[in-house]
Order: sequence, then structure tokens, then C-alpha cells
Amino acid sequence: MKIVIQGLGEMGASLALSLNAQPEHQVIGVDQDPETLKHALNQGLVVETAAQLTAVASQADVIILATPVSGIIQAIHTLAELPLNPDVIITDTGSTKRDILTEVDRHLGHVAFIGGHAMAGTHLSGVTAANSQLYQQAPYFLIPNQKGQAALPKLQDLFAPLAANFTTMDVTTHDRLMAMISDVPHIAAFALMNAAVKQLGDASEFGQYVAGGFKDTTRIAASDPKLWTDVLMSNPAAVIASNQQLIAELTAFNQALATQNTDQLLRLIQSAQKARQNL
Amino acid sequence: MKIVIQGLGEMGASLALSLNAQPEHQVIGVDQDPETLKHALNQGLVVETAAQLTAVASQADVIILATPVSGIIQAIHTLAELPLNPDVIITDTGSTKRDILTEVDRHLGHVAFIGGHAMAGTHLSGVTAANSQLYQQAPYFLIPNQKGQAALPKLQDLFAPLAANFTTMDVTTHDRLMAMISDVPHIAAFALMNAAVKQLGDASEFGQYVAGGFKDTTRIAASDPKLWTDVLMSNPAAVIASNQQLIAELTAFNQALATQNTDQLLRLIQSAQKARQNL
Repeated sequence: MKIVIQGLGEMGASLALSLNAQPEHQVIGVDQDPETLKHALNQGLVVETAAQLTAVASQADVIILATPVSGIIQAIHTLAELPLNPDVIITDTGSTKRDILTEVDRHLGHVAFIGGHAMAGTHLSGVTAANSQLYQQAPYFLIPNQKGQAALPKLQDLFAPLAANFTTMDVTTHDRLMAMISDVPHIAAFALMNAAVKQLGDASEFGQYVAGGFKDTTRIAASDPKLWTDVLMSNPAAVIASNQQLIAELTAFNQALATQNTDQLLRLIQSAQKARQNL
Repeated sequence: MKIVIQGLGEMGASLALSLNAQPEHQVIGVDQDPETLKHALNQGLVVETAAQLTAVASQADVIILATPVSGIIQAIHTLAELPLNPDVIITDTGSTKRDILTEVDRHLGHVAFIGGHAMAGTHLSGVTAANSQLYQQAPYFLIPNQKGQAALPKLQDLFAPLAANFTTMDVTTHDRLMAMISDVPHIAAFALMNAAVKQLGDASEFGQYVAGGFKDTTRIAASDPKLWTDVLMSNPAAVIASNQQLIAELTAFNQALATQNTDQLLRLIQSAQKARQNL
């Protein structure tokens, strides 16, 4: 199959590496950066390159949009204007799905689109971060549009070399799950750092006293602010609801403490411990 | 010096190991469990053992109370009734200090007492967890009573082989610091697990989807419920205040999301990221 991948960052380049290694596939890389394309070609991640999606999209059996979300949405608009292979499957790697699926419904409803979101990625970035193990054992969510439903087996077959754990779900379930297991944990880490600074002053002062518990709980507070502002803003309803649930649970701890209700406090901690052990 | 250590769990046994290795000191171990005492003697952690503090306390130059907090408070009452070396220094290893210092003021005001709290410890327990590196580089808080002030240099000299980072502070500062850097992070981890279960159902179901961020942020939710109920209940005022600060910060995120105030959201995340990087 001819596979066009737009965006050869860590996610896209790792897909290219795994797929281009299969003799039955040819990966064509699209990227704004000429050096990235040169590197991808030299390292055998792709067999061909193009600066623009418009130059190669029409010949593709599969198109993978692996840029930031704003670029994916732009590409959806671009693809809507192009003649495409009638059996083409389009997928993406964006971590938020509602905006993307909405744009697809508006402009690409006639095409099999399968939104993709892998819970994978490291602190590395760019084409040099290409890693054939990146998706191994990682949860990988597939969110098809109506026409994409029938194409699911074909895409999962193509992606088999990734050895990811694929789960198909609808966009509302995906957003609700992400809000609770990814977005709100980030907010909790951010809020804990901000609360500590307000209570104790500069982190370079109180930092000398913190142990592993504080460090682990706040590790993801070091995440990129611009990226996380975009992520949270693209999923506000579900994030607000999950965050409100967290606030309610924290309030229950303060109520137990204020009323010296030891039994209630013990129960709250026991249920949390049990859940954490079952994770 | 003759050093009596009551409680040969991980904390006490590790102290015994480091101190008994110094030729100028003799460590006497006290523990309810005969097997623990036998093991400590066989491994050279102590030169002598006793089942009861009353049997050996009077000959001690230094007494280290290394049991759970309830046992430390009981030992303070016991020591108040015994003839002690007039220059004795008593210290402890309890993670909460207000109750202990209050009991000391009531019953042992005539003695040099230096409350101790090391930010050290692993998931291991018991005498077999003795580890000469346990306190290395760890923050180690010293909270003296009035008579204990003058004895600080002597205790720090004795504890030099631990290679810990000693800081002297008063009990209010200690409790406020602990509430924010240890107690509330635990509550946040507990509350996040409880919120996730309420939103998503059983952890053995949604657990397959979680990535490293969720796992790190909730790692300490697996801590011992009984121990943490005691810890939180012994420091309620400071914990409630710090938890309220966390709730206020989480609420600020929801307000920014609800009003689509992207600039405000970005500022909240930027301040958290900066603080985390300065830790």
C-alpha cells in the first residue's frame, strides 16, 4: 500500500519506521522541514518525500495526519478539496478528538476516517526520535466516523506491526476517559505546585525538603504550558466535570478532618488504596 | 556513648546499624519482638537487647524512640516515671510532631528532647530493612524543646554518620511544611483515585488505558490507610488549610475553562511549570 504520512515528528516518524519496514508498503513522507525529509529518506523511514500534502495525497491508500491538532484540521480542509482514492483511509494522531471528528463530519463525511490517539510518546521530539518500539503495548484509541467503521479491520491489520493495544470507542467516551485519566491529573499536578508556592514561597527554597511522593505527584507539572492549554481548551466540558469530581473528593477529606471522623477518613483512603492496587 | 533505641523497624534498625558501627558507641536495642532482637544482635546492629525500655533507659546517654507515634507517646509517659541520666538526650522518629512535643512539654519538660523526622523510608519494613544508606542526603528535621536547644550540636555530631541534611525548625513550621509537601499530595492522590472510580468505574477496567502520568500522580495512593489516617488526624488544622488552597487552585482552572480564558489558563500552567522546574 502507498501510505502518506504528514508530519515526521516522534509520532509520525515512528509510524513511518514501522510501516516502511514492511516490504508490501511504501511510505511517502510530507513535512515542512527539508532537513527532516532528508533525514527520513536517508534513514529509510520513507521511500519518497514531498513538501506539500497536495502533491501526493491523491495516490495514497492510507493518509496519516501526524502534525499538531491545528495542522490536522488544516489538512482536513485541504484534503476535502482534492481528488482522493475512493477507498482511501485517513487517520490521525491528535490527542484530542472532538474538534477533529467535527471537522471531518463537515468536510470529509464521504471518506473513511478513523481518528487515532496513542497513549505513547516520550520527552523526545522530531524525526530523530523515531522509535520502532514507541507504540508497543501502548493503549491506542480508534475513533471512526460512520464510513470509517467498515475500514477498522484494514487499518488494524496495517498497524499490527506497532504491537499497540487498540480499542475502538466513540468520541464522547474518549473525551470523558481522557479528561479523567490524563487532563485532570495534569491539572492536579499544576494546582499542587501553585498551592505549594502560595503556602511556602519559592520552590527553590522548599524544594530541598520534598521527598519522592511530592516529586512523583507533581512530575507532569513540568509539561509544556502551550500544549496543555490547547489540550484542556479542546475538551472543556469533560475536563470541568472530572475536575469538579476531584474537588468534591478533596472536600470530603476536609469534612472528615474537620469533624474528626476517623472512620470516614479511613474509608476514603481504603477505597483509594484498593483502586490504586487494582490499576 | 550508650544509645538506647526502642523499635527496631526500618527507621530504628537503620539508625542502630550506622551508630553501632562507630567504636565509641554501644547501641542497646529494645523491641517487643524477640525474633527482631535476636536478628539485631546476630547482625551486629546492637551490642545488647532488652524487651522493655524500663530495663535500660536509666543507663542511656541518648534514647531514640523509633516506634509508631502512639508508642512514642506511651514511651514519653514511661520515661517520665524513670530515673534518667541528667544529661540524657531523647529523640524520636515520628512523622508528626505536635502531639509528641505537647506530651514532652507536659511530662518531660526537664529533659533535653529533640523531635526528629527524616524524609526517608522505603516500602520495606522491619529489622531486615536495616540500611546504612537510608538517611543519606535525606531531609532530616530536628524540633527541640527548650532544654533540647543546647543539645542540638551534640545530637547532630552523633548523627553525622547518617549523612542526612539536618534542618532545625519549630513545630508549627514543621506541621505547615508537612501538610503541603507530604499530607496534601497524599490526599490529592487518594482523591484522584476515588474521582476516577466514580467517573469511570472499576480501576481494573480503566487501568488498561492509563499512562505514566496517571500512574506517577497516584503512586502514593497505594500507601497504608491506617498509617495515613493517623498522620492526617494528627495535623488537621494545617492539612485542612493546605487542602483548601489546593481546592482553590483547582477551582481557578475550572473558572478559566468555563470562561474560555485561554490567557489565564496558560498563566496558571506556566507558573506551575516554572515552580516544578525550580524544585
